[in-house]
Amino acid sequence: MGVTLPQAAAPAANYLPAVGYGGFVFVSGQLPLEAGRLQVFGKVGAEVGLEDGRRAARLCAINVLAQVGAELGGDLERIIRLVRITGYVASAPSFTEQHLVMNGASDLFVEVLGERGRHARVAIGTAALPLDATAEVDAIFAVE
Amino acid sequence: MGVTLPQAAAPAANYLPAVGYGGFVFVSGQLPLEAGRLQVFGKVGAEVGLEDGRRAARLCAINVLAQVGAELGGDLERIIRLVRITGYVASAPSFTEQHLVMNGASDLFVEVLGERGRHARVAIGTAALPLDATAEVDAIFAVE
Amino acid sequence: MGVTLPQAAAPAANYLPAVGYGGFVFVSGQLPLEAGRLQVFGKVGAEVGLEDGRRAARLCAINVLAQVGAELGGDLERIIRLVRITGYVASAPSFTEQHLVMNGASDLFVEVLGERGRHARVAIGTAALPLDATAEVDAIFAVE
Repeated sequence: MGVTLPQAAAPAANYLPAVGYGGFVFVSGQLPLEAGRLQVFGKVGAEVGLEDGRRAARLCAINVLAQVGAELGGDLERIIRLVRITGYVASAPSFTEQHLVMNGASDLFVEVLGERGRHARVAIGTAALPLDATAEVDAIFAVE
Repeated sequence: MGVTLPQAAAPAANYLPAVGYGGFVFVSGQLPLEAGRLQVFGKVGAEVGLEDGRRAARLCAINVLAQVGAELGGDLERIIRLVRITGYVASAPSFTEQHLVMNGASDLFVEVLGERGRHARVAIGTAALPLDATAEVDAIFAVE
Repeated sequence: MGVTLPQAAAPAANYLPAVGYGGFVFVSGQLPLEAGRLQVFGKVGAEVGLEDGRRAARLCAINVLAQVGAELGGDLERIIRLVRITGYVASAPSFTEQHLVMNGASDLFVEVLGERGRHARVAIGTAALPLDATAEVDAIFAVE
C-alpha cells in the first residue's frame, strides 16, 4: 500500500509501547518519528503549517501501527478493528483546525486497514508536546 | 426530563462518531453543537465566562448521548452505565476551574441516566479546540 | 516500600473517583494532593521546575493507587496489571519534557506494583489544569 511500517521504537523509561488485555491493545502515545528522529516539531498555527501538521499526524499513525504490529507478533490481520484514537496537536492558541491535522492519521489508518481502520476519534490542541513534537496519537485496538 | 436529544451528527472525515466493541461503546469527542451550529466558542478565562463554559459542556454531553443513542438503535435503556468521560476545556492559561466547567456535562449525564450516569472523569484545560469550540467531551459507555 | 497510600479522596460533584466494569477499573484524573491539599501548582517551564513536576506526577500516581485500592476494597493484589495512564502536565508553551515529568508517575507505579505496574502511556502538555495543579494522571487497570 506504499506504507512501510518501521521497526517499533523501544520504550525509554518505566512504561511500555503497548499493552494488551481483554481483547484490546492500548498503544502509548506515538510521536512523528522516522528512523528514530523527530520529523516535525513546533506548533501548528505558529512555525508549522497545516500540511506539515497533517504529515506529522500521519507519521504518528504509522508508528501506532508499528507498535500494535509488534504487540501482535507482526500480524496486523489479528486486528479486528481500530476502536479509538486520541490526537493531540501542539497548537498556537489561535489555531483551531486540529480536526484537519488529525485527518492525516485517520486517513492513514483507513488506507492500511480498510473498513477495520475506521475509528472513534478525539482531536484536541495542546500547549506543548514531548520533544517539541507537532503531534501525538494514542490508540485502542480490538484484537483476536 | 426536559432534555431532547438531537439527531446525531454525521462524521466529516475518515472516522466514526462512535464505535462499539466488547461491551463498550467509545464515543468520539463531541463539540457544543446545536442544530448543526457551534453554540459556544472561545476560551474560558478570556472571552468566555464560567457559566457559558458550563453550558458548552452540557451541550457536548447532550451530543455524546445522541451519539451513543444512535449506536444503540435509539435505545438508551441498553446503557448499563457511563464509565468515563474526558472533558477538554479551551482555556486561557490563567483559568483553573475546568472541573466546574465540566460539572455542566456530569450533571447532564446524571440528570438523564440517573445513577447509571455517574462516571469516572478527567477534566483538563487545552490550548485550543477544533472550530474554536469552548469544550469537547468524549465518553466510554458499558452497554448490553 | 516506603509508599503509604492515603485515604482516597471523595468526589466533589456528580462523578466518581473510579468506575469498574468488564474486568477494568477506570480511575478519574488525580491531582498532586497530599492530606487534602494541593502540593504542587503552577506550570512547568514557568514557575515550576522539572524536579517539582516529577514530584507532582508521583503524587498523582499515589492518589491513583489510593483510588483503585478503594475500588478494590483495599486489596491491590486484585490488580492484574496497570494497562494505561494518561499524564497531563500544565506547561509553559516552551516546555517540552513532559515525558521526563511523567517518569515520576511511571516509576512510582513500577516501584509499588513491580512488573504489573508497567503500562502504556500518553504524556502531553496542557494549557492549564484544575486548581492550578501542575499535573494530572488518569489510569485504566485490569483487575480480578
